[in-house]
Amino acid sequence: MAYKAKIKVTLRPSILDVQGKAVQHALDNLGYSSVDNVRIGKYIEVSIHENDLAEAERKSEEICRKLLANTVMEDYSIELEPIN
Amino acid sequence: MAYKAKIKVTLRPSILDVQGKAVQHALDNLGYSSVDNVRIGKYIEVSIHENDLAEAERKSEEICRKLLANTVMEDYSIELEPIN
Repeated sequence: MAYKAKIKVTLRPSILDVQGKAVQHALDNLGYSSVDNVRIGKYIEVSIHENDLAEAERKSEEICRKLLANTVMEDYSIELEPIN
Repeated sequence: MAYKAKIKVTLRPSILDVQGKAVQHALDNLGYSSVDNVRIGKYIEVSIHENDLAEAERKSEEICRKLLANTVMEDYSIELEPIN
């Protein structure tokens, strides 16, 4: 059984988002005054080949904590869906 | 009225994802042999202050095409939700 994990890694709200500020500035210069609070993170998709959903959940949590996210500065969220 | 736009920018499937290959390699080295097809993109959140959803949709489409995504190489998807 295979699952697709859709992972969002975002900076914690208390951490200054320098890249987001730069994009905000570019949007201001382009005249998009109605757009603010820009926050930029990573979006990662992986396929996980495990027999059941619980094991796929465990694996995806583990790779987030060990490799994909820096949990001191970043939060992550995971969505899992079966690939037929 | 304010809306939160959650935007995913992903490399088109035909484009080689070098960063994804590097992460795949790291996962292999850590022993995660059940994980593959790693693709890495951007996740962007912005607040949009517009009177109605249609206008917020139009604005978010526009900033994706003009600034956030390189449509030659990247696809984007947008989810909008009202902020109370």
